[in-house]
Amino acid sequence: MATIRDVALKAGVGIGTVSRMMNGTGYVSDDTRKKIMDAVEALGYRPNELARNLSQNRSGIIGVMVPELTHPFFSTLTKYIETELYKRGYRCMICDVDDKPSRVEEFLELLQRNVMDGLITCVDKNETIPEIHRAIVAMDRDWGKNIPIVRSDHVKGAQLAAEIFIEEGCKKVLQFAPRTDYPMPFVARNVVLEKTLRENGIEVLTVQTDPLKMGMRYHESLSAKCAHYFGIVDGIFASDLVAAHCMKVAHQQGINVPRELKIVGYDGLFFTELLSPTLATVCQDIPEIAHCCVETVIKQINGGKHIPKEQVIDVSLRPGGSVERYRNKLR
Amino acid sequence: MATIRDVALKAGVGIGTVSRMMNGTGYVSDDTRKKIMDAVEALGYRPNELARNLSQNRSGIIGVMVPELTHPFFSTLTKYIETELYKRGYRCMICDVDDKPSRVEEFLELLQRNVMDGLITCVDKNETIPEIHRAIVAMDRDWGKNIPIVRSDHVKGAQLAAEIFIEEGCKKVLQFAPRTDYPMPFVARNVVLEKTLRENGIEVLTVQTDPLKMGMRYHESLSAKCAHYFGIVDGIFASDLVAAHCMKVAHQQGINVPRELKIVGYDGLFFTELLSPTLATVCQDIPEIAHCCVETVIKQINGGKHIPKEQVIDVSLRPGGSVERYRNKLR
Repeated sequence: MATIRDVALKAGVGIGTVSRMMNGTGYVSDDTRKKIMDAVEALGYRPNELARNLSQNRSGIIGVMVPELTHPFFSTLTKYIETELYKRGYRCMICDVDDKPSRVEEFLELLQRNVMDGLITCVDKNETIPEIHRAIVAMDRDWGKNIPIVRSDHVKGAQLAAEIFIEEGCKKVLQFAPRTDYPMPFVARNVVLEKTLRENGIEVLTVQTDPLKMGMRYHESLSAKCAHYFGIVDGIFASDLVAAHCMKVAHQQGINVPRELKIVGYDGLFFTELLSPTLATVCQDIPEIAHCCVETVIKQINGGKHIPKEQVIDVSLRPGGSVERYRNKLR
Repeated sequence: MATIRDVALKAGVGIGTVSRMMNGTGYVSDDTRKKIMDAVEALGYRPNELARNLSQNRSGIIGVMVPELTHPFFSTLTKYIETELYKRGYRCMICDVDDKPSRVEEFLELLQRNVMDGLITCVDKNETIPEIHRAIVAMDRDWGKNIPIVRSDHVKGAQLAAEIFIEEGCKKVLQFAPRTDYPMPFVARNVVLEKTLRENGIEVLTVQTDPLKMGMRYHESLSAKCAHYFGIVDGIFASDLVAAHCMKVAHQQGINVPRELKIVGYDGLFFTELLSPTLATVCQDIPEIAHCCVETVIKQINGGKHIPKEQVIDVSLRPGGSVERYRNKLR
């Protein structure tokens, strides 16, 4: 089995450098980091967890809390988090909160009792939860002033979507947006979309959604409940799952997508490429979000300094036949 | 964070006494017990579960090994397994094998080292893996004579699909089937489908698939590679993901589904209801599979007797517009 010495030798760096990177205890340049990760991959190197756990009172486990694991965004994110944790010698314990706030408290209790060394949370903080002095990273959520956030560039995401509606000549766009009393990072995308569209003379209708509900049936009921709008708007902006349900309901009403109704999704989930037409969507870079969450939580565990309060991951637009500009190029 | 040493100091007793009380491993007087509990309360002390687990040789963790967590079948199954484990006071550690056989061996090593109390495996057994005398349940896989299997009723599933192709008057059906050298329980569905169709005078073409590959891109490439068949067959039977990709390719070729080509999926995943037309599919009862896996592994942990070698869960057909009989009722 490969040792840290073998990795250092193959990467052409010192053992201390490899150790610094693995434990996140000091600066390592991107170039060196890549060399080390390539060597780790090539040699199948795994840090010796047992020794580390014994000497450092660690479990080698990181918890991942998700609102709903059947949601493809969170299952994909969990997959990449698990893979990134594995590369660094950590194991992944999951908690599917499923709209049960008591599960959040109980999982945090496990963190307090050293069952886990750190936590990546993708769910909302309950107000009753006290401040916790352990390694925690919040993915697209706000858990208070000492807890770093990793999130997508929702401002850019909203601008990419807005550009499409403007170029397509839309007059009235329906957006699905989390309740406005809900100050989470992802709310920005709806604020920016609305502002940009209005500045361009486009009317915006907003349907408020419950950000705590992530199940399939909720998304389905949401699109069904808003079906009366589909004949009076010419654009829809929604998360991929809601957008897909809207497209289905529009088909059932005999409304042509994209000729009469342009739909732009948000997330970039796999199934949007299977729809007919395919869905144009703003893709979140899930592997990079996972990578950043894992790096950050491990840095915290190792007492790293200068962890940024917020790390913002780039987004991109995936073309799809649900808007006219791509209709002839894609189905 | 308070340690056991702080508690002992504040209570005015020895560390061994606190430990005896916390773990219930020896006599502690009522008076001493009260002193310790007061100290625990005052300091906000929480027992270090790491140390406790070590002394009790039990982690309260069940491992779940999946081939690919981005695959909706496995993310849904993991969700329900995690929920069932939670109800019984267990936590869920996951391992996404992602076509890396070494990960199976490493995860089993954690089981051997008591990091987990039991394992639910949804991946294949590597031939090099020795016999393991721990609590293990295999979901739709064969891990040897002492390891119980939980699986769907694939014979019924194949019959439900076959009935549709027969009633729809198909003459030539293409099926995607795992390599025949692969003796896993789910292979039954293809054997039974082929036999039933041939008995009814229907020709069957079989494309062999690699059962170890579960990623989205593999399913996509598979359907693209077989696109030349779509004009010469009038039926397709495949897992939901492959079936959905086939439907997309058929659309691109201008082939009408269901008029010219009937497609029946297998699994019953959420996105099949979003396709246009929706996919008729044989649904596996994922919540019930999860429930049965969890009950069985906990029975094993508790030394239960008479655990059946094989438990078979019912399947059902979900209608969809991808076959003619449902075309007018559904879109």
